[in-house]
Formats: sequence, C-alpha cells, structure tokens
Amino acid sequence: MVQKVDSFTYTVEPFDDDFTGRLSWAVLGKHVLACAENHAGARGFDRLEKDGHRYLWVLSRIVFEMDEWPRRGERYTISTWIRQYYRYFTDRCFDVADANGKIIGRVFTIWAMIDAETRRPQVLEGLFGHTFDPFIEMDRPCDVRPFSRIRVNKEQAAETRHTYYSDIDENNHVNSIRYIEFILDAFPKSSFEGREVSRIELAYNSETLCGDTLQFFMEQAEDSDWHVLVRKNTGETVCHSAVTFKNTKN
Amino acid sequence: MVQKVDSFTYTVEPFDDDFTGRLSWAVLGKHVLACAENHAGARGFDRLEKDGHRYLWVLSRIVFEMDEWPRRGERYTISTWIRQYYRYFTDRCFDVADANGKIIGRVFTIWAMIDAETRRPQVLEGLFGHTFDPFIEMDRPCDVRPFSRIRVNKEQAAETRHTYYSDIDENNHVNSIRYIEFILDAFPKSSFEGREVSRIELAYNSETLCGDTLQFFMEQAEDSDWHVLVRKNTGETVCHSAVTFKNTKN
Repeated sequence: MVQKVDSFTYTVEPFDDDFTGRLSWAVLGKHVLACAENHAGARGFDRLEKDGHRYLWVLSRIVFEMDEWPRRGERYTISTWIRQYYRYFTDRCFDVADANGKIIGRVFTIWAMIDAETRRPQVLEGLFGHTFDPFIEMDRPCDVRPFSRIRVNKEQAAETRHTYYSDIDENNHVNSIRYIEFILDAFPKSSFEGREVSRIELAYNSETLCGDTLQFFMEQAEDSDWHVLVRKNTGETVCHSAVTFKNTKN
Repeated sequence: MVQKVDSFTYTVEPFDDDFTGRLSWAVLGKHVLACAENHAGARGFDRLEKDGHRYLWVLSRIVFEMDEWPRRGERYTISTWIRQYYRYFTDRCFDVADANGKIIGRVFTIWAMIDAETRRPQVLEGLFGHTFDPFIEMDRPCDVRPFSRIRVNKEQAAETRHTYYSDIDENNHVNSIRYIEFILDAFPKSSFEGREVSRIELAYNSETLCGDTLQFFMEQAEDSDWHVLVRKNTGETVCHSAVTFKNTKN
C-alpha cells in the first residue's frame, strides 16, 4: 500500500508565536512549504534534472483557512498530499490538526514546475510520466472557499518597503511566505488586537529580487475582508492577496 | 546529580536556510532564545511573579561565534547552561554542535531580570535566593572573544526602516533576534557571496515598539569587522553591534 499522506508534528516553540501568543503566520507558512518539499522529496519529485535542464516547483496560489490557532507550547500536526495534477499545474492539500487530532486549519495550493533557466512552466506528464499517479489522494477532504476575484482600485500605496538579504531564499528571490508577513505588516498593529486573521489567499504573478521596492495597495472588500495588490515600483504586479479577519473568541 | 546543561537537537528544514544554503541567523537566534527559555522553564525560573509584581528576563548582550554552518537537511544541537550570576546580571552560555558532536559555534549571553512594570533591573539574589546555585556550570568551555568597544562616528544613516507587526514578540517590542536580521540587511547582498558572517555581537540599550523607525549607522572597524549603531529616529540608541565576515571555504 503506497503512503499518500505524510504528517509532520511541531511544537509552538518560544518565539514561533506572534505578540498575541498564537503560532505566527510566518512559521506556519514556512512549515507548510517544508512539508510540501519533504513529502515530494520522499517520493523523488521535489526537483528534477533531466537532459541538461533543471526544473523547480514554484507556488502559483495558496490559500490558508485557520479555524483556531495553536499557542505557545502546544503541538500541532501538518499533513500533506497531492490531490490532482493537470497539464501544467498540480494541486497539493494540507490540513492542520491540534494535539487532539481535531482539524483546525486547511491549506490548498497550486504549483507549477518551471525550467530553472527559461522560467517557463512545463507539461507535467511530459516530465514525470505517470509518476504522481500512485500518490494521488482525492478522498481526504480539504474544503476551502474558492479563490476570490481580487480587485484593488486604489492608486495610492498604503505601504512601501524594500527587500533585503533576509527576505530571499535559495531561489534568490523573495520567499513566497515572506509576502504574508509583508501583507500583514501593511495593517496597523491594532488590527490584530481582539481579532485574528482567519484566511489568507495569495496568487503569485512575478518574482521579487533582493533590493526591489514593493508597494502595497489595499482595499476593504467586505467588512472583514481586505484585498491587497503588491507591485514593484516599476509597476509590475508581484501578487494579489485577500485577507480575512475574524473577532477572537473569549 | 542535578542536570545543569540541556541540549536541543534541530534539523535545518527547508527555508530555515538563507540563499546560500546555510542555516539562517534568524533561525539560529530564535532557537538560542528558545533553548534559554526552555532550560530556565524546566528549572522554574523562566519568569517570576512575586508579591504582586511580574518579572521578566531581558537580554542585555549576546555574542555568537560560528566556525561552520549546518546546511539544509543537517542536524545540529544547541546546548545551554548558566555560567554565573552577579548582583544584576547572569551569564548564560551555549554551544552549537554538528551532527557528529563537533562544536561549530558558541554563544555567550548576559541577561537581567526587570520588573515588568517599572522596567528596572532587579537584584537577582533578592528575587531568587540561591535558586540558581545548583545549576551553575563553570567548567564547560564557552570561549568567545570579549565584547568589542563599539564606536560609530558616521552621521549619515546607511539604512532606515520601519518596524511592523511581524517584528514584535509577546513582550510587545521588537524581538532581540530581529535586530540581527535588520543589521545584516543593512549590508548589500553581495556581502554574503563568497563570504559568511562568522561573529555577531549585540548590546541592547532600549526597546523598539511596533511602528518605530530605526536608523542604521555603519562603519568599517577593521578589514572584516563592521560596527553598527541602531538608533530610533528620535535619536535614542537601540543597540550597538559588531559584525565579522570571513571568506567562505571551498
């Protein structure tokens, strides 16, 4: 029996939490990406070198929905599996369980594989044949609200920031998860007092290199929903995001 | 026999590394602080409430010396112990070992305990009596070069940046380790190509709150040594730092 789902258990260590004591988005996001890489690596498709070409997975979209947050000292488990693959994209799901096994969050992602040099997306079946087939898991639920249609009409940036050494990863670009920090940072600190972020979605459009300047355009979509557009100062769109707040219980 | 030293083993997970593939300073620093908290917590002195007062440990100085860096997928172990305590301060040491047990780094720290309200340092023996005595470990070596005399005469800031939600911790101020990221970010990315940071020291002078603006004044002290002074835009000094680069082997 082929193992389709891998699970990784973590503890909210000191300083893995934000100022409210909840697991931070940065740490959750980093672990989600690491689980994806470890799951793919254990099955031989975390990266690919073939016929003199090098291929990399790039994250195209990600949506997190968190019902509850683990707090400092608490354990949580992230499980991940592939739900499907298409011509150019593959869907990877995650769920987050608390120490009692109760599902407290879900993450849905879409990935493409690009040629490291040309940066063009590749036909997955062409590269991998039917390598993924035994690992497809369609039955385990990962129900998240579909991606939003994100629109921002604001012409004035709410925030501008530079990118630095600490923001970039092995691919020499700003790490996908760092944008979550940047986007949340564009809200005033009071936004996180008595409220928590329950959903974040991100659609990635282009890469940011070390030293680029980013501008954040924000618009309230509904009461608790914000749409955020991130652009380089050259005008190029980097990503679209939607952020949902909810009032904190107790 | 009382256990004086606690050890914690980690793996360099995907995205725990910087763009060169080495464990990042941010992750190493976070784990060092977490080890301190876990070691103190296991012995009942991670924090203190007494006579209606709440007391917290604050980091006064930290120096890291790293001979080698673990790389992605490699395991490393951080060990920590108390070396001594004085009227107002306590010395805590750490070493970092690679997967074979070879010591590849050392961290020396000085902490004070402050009243959470008045923010004034407290006489440690007054609060704790001789609680620390059984845990003092003076024999295990933790030889680091003494703290530098840090002087920066530059009047022009090399970098200015704001602080945000993601930068602050449970104490509602910018986390001590975040300054390491900020300080390294004040160097151009090329500083980290073919070179690595082998030593960082930090002396903390005052807190930074969310939303403060920080200015970074930098001066080359010797060939491979830089001194950095961090000030708020109000002029108040936040911390002093010295950063040493060395050429990367191979």
